[in-house]
Amino acid sequence: MVKGIQCKMKITSVNNDIIKNISKLQQRKYRDENGLFLLEGEKAVEEALDYGINIRYLFVEEDSELFMHSDRIETTQAVLSKISTTVTPPKVVGVGEQVERIWSNDYKRVVLLEDIKDAGNLGTIIRTACAFNVDAIILYGDTVDLYNPKCVRASVGNLWKVPIFSLKNLEELQKYTGNLIPISTLPKNKDSIYLKEFKVPEAFVMMFGTESCGLSNELIEYTKKRGQFLTVEMTDKVESLNLSISTGIILYKLFIEN
Amino acid sequence: MVKGIQCKMKITSVNNDIIKNISKLQQRKYRDENGLFLLEGEKAVEEALDYGINIRYLFVEEDSELFMHSDRIETTQAVLSKISTTVTPPKVVGVGEQVERIWSNDYKRVVLLEDIKDAGNLGTIIRTACAFNVDAIILYGDTVDLYNPKCVRASVGNLWKVPIFSLKNLEELQKYTGNLIPISTLPKNKDSIYLKEFKVPEAFVMMFGTESCGLSNELIEYTKKRGQFLTVEMTDKVESLNLSISTGIILYKLFIEN
Repeated sequence: MVKGIQCKMKITSVNNDIIKNISKLQQRKYRDENGLFLLEGEKAVEEALDYGINIRYLFVEEDSELFMHSDRIETTQAVLSKISTTVTPPKVVGVGEQVERIWSNDYKRVVLLEDIKDAGNLGTIIRTACAFNVDAIILYGDTVDLYNPKCVRASVGNLWKVPIFSLKNLEELQKYTGNLIPISTLPKNKDSIYLKEFKVPEAFVMMFGTESCGLSNELIEYTKKRGQFLTVEMTDKVESLNLSISTGIILYKLFIEN
Repeated sequence: MVKGIQCKMKITSVNNDIIKNISKLQQRKYRDENGLFLLEGEKAVEEALDYGINIRYLFVEEDSELFMHSDRIETTQAVLSKISTTVTPPKVVGVGEQVERIWSNDYKRVVLLEDIKDAGNLGTIIRTACAFNVDAIILYGDTVDLYNPKCVRASVGNLWKVPIFSLKNLEELQKYTGNLIPISTLPKNKDSIYLKEFKVPEAFVMMFGTESCGLSNELIEYTKKRGQFLTVEMTDKVESLNLSISTGIILYKLFIEN
């Protein structure tokens, strides 16, 4: 845009090609292919801008005064509804560029999440990890993608505050975290230590599996070989804790009280 | 039913009066008026039966072999869809009778939740409270009702394992918990103690407000007069923790490590 000239862009048709392509970003395949993702709502866009995320497009409801000083594209409720995933369309939808992270060997306190399917759970865990100053998060195996709109919402703007990596298999895991001691949670057995008594190693990767199945045998074997098991004490009234709750408790103990 | 005679009940019309009335139980007003609530799915019904909850009606999909030895009513997918609140109708829907609880002065470690609107959050907190052996839960002020179908689902069968009470105002609160020391969470200030250093009183009511607004002034004043404030340590990267996460961490510390 030429400085000083107020250029007012407007798209009103849901059949516009840009709109059609952007609405495809609701699907992982298109997010992965294009390296883009959706930011739904004013707060999500603001926080992304604060963190220096590049915003490729910024759609606002016509006549709204939001983001007046940005390169915004005015549009209709129908278009906002088509490109967003929420039941009530937000007044603002941004299209952000995904961030490439570079692994650092200085990471000493890392959290790994295996096969997490619930994007809301993932977002909540990311938010907790930020609060407790985790060095990095690894999404391992078949985990929901970070840029899933539900995950973006549930992380409440924390997606950029901690580096997050996707690793596919044990080979990659060993390559990146070979210097870290793996810790796994298990229901209490002879090999596991209660969280209350757990001595936290200096450099570790704390691994969490799914709520229903726990960690894979692969990661349990990996822990057996060179790591430690821990158990959150609780009554036998309940089969298990919600995954994000046990993650919260363990991260608090390992990162704050340690 | 006369013993020894296999009486097979069947309702196939969504316009049947019983079905019409039961589908109203999706709304709080009708749950409150009738003292009934919905149990959606096999697991929810089984757990309610295990805990001795009276089941007024039990609907199962026709030709299903579930609950063969109970007084079940066979029905169609359309009827199950009409009475249930889930997107995919379950194969079993029960109608349970709400439980009346009687307050005990032996309760020493009580959790209070004020104005909680998110039924999923409430269910998760109830599950955590059960895991850590809370004596009782108080729903204070304008909280979502316990028998909200989403809450029943999120508590994963723990609704009956801990006594839960609804209290409307400070007068009621003082009447029931006058012997307990109120504890409130606050962002760190001069009056609050970090969780790590917090000395847990012998008999207390631990109070949680909403994620967005915290506790009401009323309960903060009540705590100032005769209680204590605590704060969960965290970085300033994040404004706050998810409510069920901070509840989980605090309950772990107060109930397990204490």
